Amino acid sequence: MTNKLADIISQIQPIDPAWRAKAQARLDNLTKPPGSLGRLEEVAAQYVAIREELFPLLKKKKVVVFASDHGVVAEGVSAYPPEVTFQMVYNFLRGGAGINVLARHVGAAVEVVDIGVNHEFQEAPGLISRKVAPGSRNLAREAAMSQDQALAAIMVGVERAQAALDEGVDALAAGDMGIGNTTPAAALAAVFTGRPPAEVTGRGTGIDDAALNHKVAVIQRALDLHCPDPQDPLAVLAQVGGLEIAGICGLILGAATGRRPLLLDGFIATAGALVAAALAPAATGYLIAAHRSVEPGHRIMQEHLGLKPLLDLDLRLGEGTGAALGFGLLEAGLKIYAEMATFAEAGVSEKEA
Amino acid sequence: MTNKLADIISQIQPIDPAWRAKAQARLDNLTKPPGSLGRLEEVAAQYVAIREELFPLLKKKKVVVFASDHGVVAEGVSAYPPEVTFQMVYNFLRGGAGINVLARHVGAAVEVVDIGVNHEFQEAPGLISRKVAPGSRNLAREAAMSQDQALAAIMVGVERAQAALDEGVDALAAGDMGIGNTTPAAALAAVFTGRPPAEVTGRGTGIDDAALNHKVAVIQRALDLHCPDPQDPLAVLAQVGGLEIAGICGLILGAATGRRPLLLDGFIATAGALVAAALAPAATGYLIAAHRSVEPGHRIMQEHLGLKPLLDLDLRLGEGTGAALGFGLLEAGLKIYAEMATFAEAGVSEKEA
Repeated sequence: MTNKLADIISQIQPIDPAWRAKAQARLDNLTKPPGSLGRLEEVAAQYVAIREELFPLLKKKKVVVFASDHGVVAEGVSAYPPEVTFQMVYNFLRGGAGINVLARHVGAAVEVVDIGVNHEFQEAPGLISRKVAPGSRNLAREAAMSQDQALAAIMVGVERAQAALDEGVDALAAGDMGIGNTTPAAALAAVFTGRPPAEVTGRGTGIDDAALNHKVAVIQRALDLHCPDPQDPLAVLAQVGGLEIAGICGLILGAATGRRPLLLDGFIATAGALVAAALAPAATGYLIAAHRSVEPGHRIMQEHLGLKPLLDLDLRLGEGTGAALGFGLLEAGLKIYAEMATFAEAGVSEKEA
Repeated sequence: MTNKLADIISQIQPIDPAWRAKAQARLDNLTKPPGSLGRLEEVAAQYVAIREELFPLLKKKKVVVFASDHGVVAEGVSAYPPEVTFQMVYNFLRGGAGINVLARHVGAAVEVVDIGVNHEFQEAPGLISRKVAPGSRNLAREAAMSQDQALAAIMVGVERAQAALDEGVDALAAGDMGIGNTTPAAALAAVFTGRPPAEVTGRGTGIDDAALNHKVAVIQRALDLHCPDPQDPLAVLAQVGGLEIAGICGLILGAATGRRPLLLDGFIATAGALVAAALAPAATGYLIAAHRSVEPGHRIMQEHLGLKPLLDLDLRLGEGTGAALGFGLLEAGLKIYAEMATFAEAGVSEKEA
């Protein structure tokens, strides 16, 4: 691992449970039975502990969508043609995609980062151009990228987190766009959770049974080829990962160094979290699992990370759409924490002994 | 059943699946894999079918909180003293309760209806005074109310739905406040689902094991005393119900007659839905189960009604808090439906054959 990455990782502090306890003490004084707002109370206390302030604000929210292409689409693992990646980037920039709609709904900004799209964008105002390579290589036949490229893509994510912090962003979300990217995500899930490909591989955008069996076989072939070692996360990322997954990993590390929560979207974003957690276990304290995807491997990933999703709405779009919805719930929890009356303020009797 | 109630029920039309199909056809044309926004797509299509308009607005949202007291608290079934009911009504009116915070978060109005609180409210601006009785009687020893009172309380709910419609409200939510009210709700669950009290009774605001066993025994005693007949829902409501539960039942019927969705909160609101569905099965098409409560009987009720909750956040506060969060998701689904670009508009390639 290089010095730059080691330096970022060394700045990540574990969450202090004393701050959670301080937040819970206030929550228990509010006019409701203790704990009766369940997960809303938990995320509020987590946010207080992340920010280490008794009444932290949550104003500016941003979803960073990393887009890249995947050489493994040559194996026929996706229901959509690869040009959809760049077409959807234009859709994001024009505001017509799912993530644009849901980010507007929760009052979050959307930033789109070309970290590896196989397309030369013309007239794409708003696009953050950080192309590390025009897509990954075919992980079933060779390493998806070099370790230098993997590192460069992680550092793009770190940089975007730091740019967001400089703008005063209070909470970040990670999203993805990349036709074919459930294949590297499933491969990473298999490596880091130790489960066989068949258990962590799903239908992505909607392949049929035959294509699903083929996708599992492609992933198994990649694992047999690379023999990835989960103790060397950067090497694993280079062997079977993807550029947008590396960017998400970096965004997580950058958010954690800056003491900001990172709302995780679905299967792809959580694959990035597996790499981030392998590099820096303390980073998981800054993660909020916004939802549980339809992809069967998502539950396995979340359990491995010790994360419980807020939503379970049968989503499988990616882009950060589930994470955007999570912002609404995090904000709800914080408003409960900050705005509800206490028993004393409201003159309400407490629980009988 | 009286003519007034029969008249309301006769106005409720079943949801037309052709409208759902029209909505789904548009959803399938948007720039995302078909069905990939899961439950958000389902609630959007349900809303279109309820409103029977291709692009229905969702602007005005209202939570109606019905408050009442319960004679059964004399049996020691609650962790909180009964005066908390009226104290919390004041808290609602001052804006300091959980429902106030979450309704503000989603841009919904809150209306508080005294339908049976055992307290004479002084200086309570904003309170809708519709007291049918100063609380129910002790259902473990006698009928909770007369059938005339049950009917009057239902008609209060119908009237509040109609008042909301007159104000141009697009979607309603039902909430409750009433110390002791998980006991009648569990009794109603036992009657309408046919399950034994031990399976549908929970800890409410937080009673211990001994009190829980006692609560189950109290409910069993009530069932043995009244022998409620689920074929006669109004009689069941009078025997083992509560005034706020009757109000919620009426709000559901009124929303359905006016073709407006009703977001159901937790255990108490869903007990009202059991009565409404027994009176008018077509009303269930207008219900959106916003969340699944910690109360173990809630899942059983929802399965009986064929409702799948949007959220599962370990909530157990009531007041309409879970329903308010549901407004946020319904609105997200409708914005997806109305605002996302189609494949043709965005120039994005469709799925390969």
